[in-house]
Amino acid sequence: MNVTHVRAATHTYNVYVGENLRHWTADYLPKTYPSILIVTDEKVARYYLEDVKRSLSQKHVAVHTIQSGESAKSIDVFYELQTKAIEFGLERNSLIIALGGGVVGDVAGFVAATFMRGIDYVQMPTTILAHDSSVGGKVAINHEQGKNMIGSFHAPAAVIYDVTTLATLTEQEIRSGYAELLKEALLSDSAMYEAVMANDLSALTSEKLSHQLISGIDVKAAIVEADEYETDQRKFLNLGHTLGHALETILGYGSWTHGELVAIGLLFAIWVSEKIYGVKLPYNAIYRWLKSNGYPLKWPSINSETIFTKMKSDKKTVSGTIQMVLLQKIGHPVMCEIDDRHMLSYLRTFQNELLSSNEQGGKQHEK
Amino acid sequence: MNVTHVRAATHTYNVYVGENLRHWTADYLPKTYPSILIVTDEKVARYYLEDVKRSLSQKHVAVHTIQSGESAKSIDVFYELQTKAIEFGLERNSLIIALGGGVVGDVAGFVAATFMRGIDYVQMPTTILAHDSSVGGKVAINHEQGKNMIGSFHAPAAVIYDVTTLATLTEQEIRSGYAELLKEALLSDSAMYEAVMANDLSALTSEKLSHQLISGIDVKAAIVEADEYETDQRKFLNLGHTLGHALETILGYGSWTHGELVAIGLLFAIWVSEKIYGVKLPYNAIYRWLKSNGYPLKWPSINSETIFTKMKSDKKTVSGTIQMVLLQKIGHPVMCEIDDRHMLSYLRTFQNELLSSNEQGGKQHEK
Repeated sequence: MNVTHVRAATHTYNVYVGENLRHWTADYLPKTYPSILIVTDEKVARYYLEDVKRSLSQKHVAVHTIQSGESAKSIDVFYELQTKAIEFGLERNSLIIALGGGVVGDVAGFVAATFMRGIDYVQMPTTILAHDSSVGGKVAINHEQGKNMIGSFHAPAAVIYDVTTLATLTEQEIRSGYAELLKEALLSDSAMYEAVMANDLSALTSEKLSHQLISGIDVKAAIVEADEYETDQRKFLNLGHTLGHALETILGYGSWTHGELVAIGLLFAIWVSEKIYGVKLPYNAIYRWLKSNGYPLKWPSINSETIFTKMKSDKKTVSGTIQMVLLQKIGHPVMCEIDDRHMLSYLRTFQNELLSSNEQGGKQHEK
Repeated sequence: MNVTHVRAATHTYNVYVGENLRHWTADYLPKTYPSILIVTDEKVARYYLEDVKRSLSQKHVAVHTIQSGESAKSIDVFYELQTKAIEFGLERNSLIIALGGGVVGDVAGFVAATFMRGIDYVQMPTTILAHDSSVGGKVAINHEQGKNMIGSFHAPAAVIYDVTTLATLTEQEIRSGYAELLKEALLSDSAMYEAVMANDLSALTSEKLSHQLISGIDVKAAIVEADEYETDQRKFLNLGHTLGHALETILGYGSWTHGELVAIGLLFAIWVSEKIYGVKLPYNAIYRWLKSNGYPLKWPSINSETIFTKMKSDKKTVSGTIQMVLLQKIGHPVMCEIDDRHMLSYLRTFQNELLSSNEQGGKQHEK
C-alpha cells in the first residue's frame, strides 16, 4: 500500500492506494465518527457497498444511493442528500463517505462542504478518473448552463483508494480515466508521458495501473499543495478542459464520458499550442494512441459558434476573454489569453482537421 | 464614520458604520471589480437600490431582486441567483453586493461562497438585525427541516453599514434587531446590558442606535476572530437560538420575525440557567423590558414534544444530546449538555410559566 500526504490549508490528509482497502475502511479513517452516511451510486453499490458497510459494522451507518452518471451532479440530488443527512440525524462531527467515481465524490463532497456549514468526508474512488477528482478538495455540482459552476474547496479527511475495485470498470471508463492520466503526464514530464503512452488499455496490468495512478496522484498533490485555491498553477490542471467542459455542457452530462471529451480537448490544446508557440508537440503520437485505444475522436455535431459561446462562460474566463492552458513543451504549461476572433477561427479549423484526420486515418496533420 | 477591522482566516476586512455610506459605495470597496451583481429584496430596492447603483455608475452592474422575508432563503432562490450570475457573465474576480437584511446577506453570501467555488461579496446591511449576521462570514440557506442547515463560512470582502437606511424600519424590525443586541449584551458585560435595557425602542435616537450597533459589532468581531469556524466560543452566539431556531422552523419561516423568537429563546435560556446553576439572573427585568417594548411574548401554539424533536436536529447537537448556551452571570456564557428528560420537562414548565406570566402581567416568576 502507498500513502501520499497532502497538506491542505485546514489540515493534512492521507491518500491510501492499495488492494482490498475497502474491507478495512474503519482502519483508514482519521478518527472515530459517531455516525456515517455512505453516498454511492447504483452501479457501485451492487459491487462494493456491502464490503464497506461490513468494514464499519460497529457504527451508526446509513446509505444513500444516487443514480449513476453525470446527471446526478444536480441541484435536486444535492438537496435530496441534504434531506437524507438531516433525517438520518447527521451532526457536525459526523462523516460522509463518497464511495464511487468522480460524480459521487463531487456531489457527496459538496454536501459535506455545506451541510451545517461543513463536515468531514472521505473519498473512496472506484474509477481511474476519480484518482484526479478525489484529491485536492474541489467539490461541485453542475448548473444546466455550466459544469461544476456551484461548488466549494473542501479538502477530504482521507482518500481510500482500493484499486481492486477498478477490475469492474468498462473499457469506456478506463479510457475516460486515462485521459486525465495523460493530462497529468503532459503537465509533468517526458518519463510519465512515455509511461502512459506505452500502455495498451485493453491489456493493462493491475501493477502498472497502480503505479501510474500513484504518479498521477503525486502530480496532482504537488500542484494542489502549491496552490489549493487555484489562484495560479492549479489552473494548469484545466489542460484540455476548456473545450472538454464546453462540449460536456452542450451535449448534456452523461452522453459522452468526461474523459472522452477531455481527450478531444487535449488534442485541441496541443494543436493550438503548436499554432501559437510554433513548437512541435506530439500531436500525431497522441492522436494515434487515442485512436488505437478506442477513443471516439469524432467532432460532436455542434457548430463552433455554440461551443465558443459556452467556452466564454468557463470559470477561467477573465474580463470576458477565454484563458486556455497551453503547452510550450511537455512539462511546461502556460496560461494564454485568446481573443474571440482567434478562438473562433481555431475552433473552426481544428474541427475541419479532426474531420479529415478521421477520414484519412490521422495522416492529415502531418502534411 | 466608524471602522472595525475583522481578521478572518483568508483576509482582513473592514466594517464601516456611518451615515449615507450608500451614496459612496465604490469608495468602500476593497478593490475594483470588473462586474458586480447587486442582490436585494423588493422592499429595500424601493428605497435604496438607485442610490447604490448610482454610486457604482462606472461599473458593469446587474441587479437581482428577491422576495422579502425568510422564505427567500430557499434552495430555489439560491439556484435562481446562480442562474442570474451565469447569465449576467459574473466571473471569478467579480463581486456580489448583498443590499438588505439578514436574509439577503445570507442567501447572496451563500451564492458568493459557491459560485465558481467562491467569489467576493460585500454586505450592505439595511436592518438592525443584520449588524450581527453581516459580520463573521456565516452564510446559509434554510432547509424545510432546519434553519441555516445548508451553508458555508465565507468572510465578506467588506461590510458597508449605512445607518441612515435604518430610518425606514418598522417597529417590528427594530424589535427583531434589538433581540440580537440584547443577546450580545448578555454575552458581553453589564455596561452594555444596562445600555440596551435603558432604551425605549419607540424613541431611539440615531446616535444612540449607532453607538449600540458598533458595540454589538465589536462583541461579534472579537468572538469570530477568536473562533471563526465555531469550534469553541463562537457557539455562545447561539444564546437564545436553540429554542428560537426550532420555533422558527416549525412556524414556517417568516410568520414571526427571527428576533421575536430569539427574544423568547433568550428568556428560556435565562430561565434554564437559573434552574441549573441556581443563580439569580435578570429574568424579570428582561421580561418587563421585552413586554414594554411590544415583543409578543406568547407561546406559539406548538406542543413541547414537537419543539423538543426539532431542537434535537439543531446544528449544535452532539451525539444526540442538545447543547444549549446558558449564562452563569452576565458576560459568562457556558455550553451545557441537557439530557432529553430534563429538556422536555424544562420546555413544558417554561411554557406554562410564560402563559401565566402573560395572564398575570409578568409577576408569576417572582413568587
